[in-house]
Amino acid sequence: MLRAVYSHGGKRNPRLILGPGIGRDTAVVRLGKKLVVLTADPVTGTTKRIGEHSVHINANDIAATGARPVWYVCTLLLPPGTSEKALARIMSGIDETARSLEITVAGGHTEVTQGLQRPLIAGFMVGETEGRVLASSNMRNGDWILMTKTAGIEGTAILASEYSGRLKSVDGRTIRRAQGFGKNISIVKEALRVSKIVGVHAMHDPTEGGVLNGLWEMAEASALGIEVWADHIPVATETSRLCSHLRLDPLKLMSSGCLLVAVTPKSVGRVMKALRVRGVMVSEVARVGPRSKGRFLLKEGKKLGLVAVPQDELYRLA
Amino acid sequence: MLRAVYSHGGKRNPRLILGPGIGRDTAVVRLGKKLVVLTADPVTGTTKRIGEHSVHINANDIAATGARPVWYVCTLLLPPGTSEKALARIMSGIDETARSLEITVAGGHTEVTQGLQRPLIAGFMVGETEGRVLASSNMRNGDWILMTKTAGIEGTAILASEYSGRLKSVDGRTIRRAQGFGKNISIVKEALRVSKIVGVHAMHDPTEGGVLNGLWEMAEASALGIEVWADHIPVATETSRLCSHLRLDPLKLMSSGCLLVAVTPKSVGRVMKALRVRGVMVSEVARVGPRSKGRFLLKEGKKLGLVAVPQDELYRLA
Repeated sequence: MLRAVYSHGGKRNPRLILGPGIGRDTAVVRLGKKLVVLTADPVTGTTKRIGEHSVHINANDIAATGARPVWYVCTLLLPPGTSEKALARIMSGIDETARSLEITVAGGHTEVTQGLQRPLIAGFMVGETEGRVLASSNMRNGDWILMTKTAGIEGTAILASEYSGRLKSVDGRTIRRAQGFGKNISIVKEALRVSKIVGVHAMHDPTEGGVLNGLWEMAEASALGIEVWADHIPVATETSRLCSHLRLDPLKLMSSGCLLVAVTPKSVGRVMKALRVRGVMVSEVARVGPRSKGRFLLKEGKKLGLVAVPQDELYRLA
Repeated sequence: MLRAVYSHGGKRNPRLILGPGIGRDTAVVRLGKKLVVLTADPVTGTTKRIGEHSVHINANDIAATGARPVWYVCTLLLPPGTSEKALARIMSGIDETARSLEITVAGGHTEVTQGLQRPLIAGFMVGETEGRVLASSNMRNGDWILMTKTAGIEGTAILASEYSGRLKSVDGRTIRRAQGFGKNISIVKEALRVSKIVGVHAMHDPTEGGVLNGLWEMAEASALGIEVWADHIPVATETSRLCSHLRLDPLKLMSSGCLLVAVTPKSVGRVMKALRVRGVMVSEVARVGPRSKGRFLLKEGKKLGLVAVPQDELYRLA
């Protein structure tokens, strides 16, 4: 799946603080004393729980900048013949997820669109902050990169829900637990906590292409080098089982639910403690270096190049 | 085509000034000293000039509240096999239209979406104002309703561009002039001018269902009665020719490009003058009454009921 972002266009406006770029799905604009963060992220690849998903992925984009997600608006395009019940299920998914994250659904547009085979939802979110914004391009040479939870959380839930036909030899308990991973795709609470700690320079929520692509995106956005310790990246048992069964690399699998945090070495301990006291698992997975030192991956004693992941592992199954 | 809007959901927020409702495609939220207007409006029914169209329809929604459209973000979903040239054409349409309206393109998301037959664009816009917001529900009993330009401007352009096969007996000059109507679908400049005049209570930009549906929506949103003078609603010669050829009612034809303004009788002259000195044609087309007096249409000496237009005339051709 091709992904691209607009360069900014239209009228030049000095209040546009940050336009879009690699590893950044958000724009930041100044509005009076506040910084306002805008994001637009659609759900097109799944038909399950798309309302919940739309709110989560947009909220993650906002929270990864350190801003608080506040307002959600969406355009919902439905295929002809969609039942009122199916529509109500999407709506209540939006409503409940927004409430759980303290986000207000300000409005939206729903229509039946000719020629669609499945519902599509284009979510739009507005975040607010009075403090700084942590763009993924803000990493500094010498930072450590911490990672919360485990790799491929989102992909694990999708595999267990939508590809169960290919997982018949995997035990039912693993499948059910993997399906439950969908409950862990929010990084809002951990991001808002961590963003306030002095010494945190950048955050990023890896999505397509998994943790490895997310780490590459941070390095690329910051024009720096990186050394990734692949063996330190935690993978849940369920993720590991599903991936080995389907011959997928969990480190390149959709990873909403995991937050990457670039932090000055002196503050590593404080960030880890702040997360652990809240019950959020955290690991040291990479170190940032000068661009001239290159970007690479240490894995089972080998040193491999770290490059952009061109296609998420999930799409290898489609 | 079914159209619905969300009731607001998620967390209750006292800064949500206006949620969505009938005849209102926008939400208004308070942010510091400013009021911020949010809108979400997709382009799904046409494949021609969708970038231009997306910016215009969202800007119209914002401007009809009296706020200035400032920031545009969109999600662009492309069918597999879309050429780089087609993508570049959409992008430059967005860029040029935004620049002409002094709007900044802050970002967006582009992807190739499996299963799509045509490109879809979900536009989002953020407007700002320090003054009042003119919801279409703000009409007062006794107001006059003025209308700018002519009925069915947007529909005329679409008919001439996309249904030319059915218009073979219409002369080429009329078709070419009708195609040019696409240049007149913005109401931003007239709305921003008119909104500052004391005595203007509500504005609305009629879209699907045409001018008659727009007038009904204003009455419904304000819970008032209305008397519409159908014979006073101006219809351009090109619109009239195309519609009579296709047996469509121009007053129920997509009308982006036309602005409806509810104004206290004493200020009617001032509004008309302000528009005419800028070269914008304006007509008196309706008067607002108490709900108990009913909603009707005076047409060729007959008094007809005014009800919601269930389907735009354009869809009768599909």
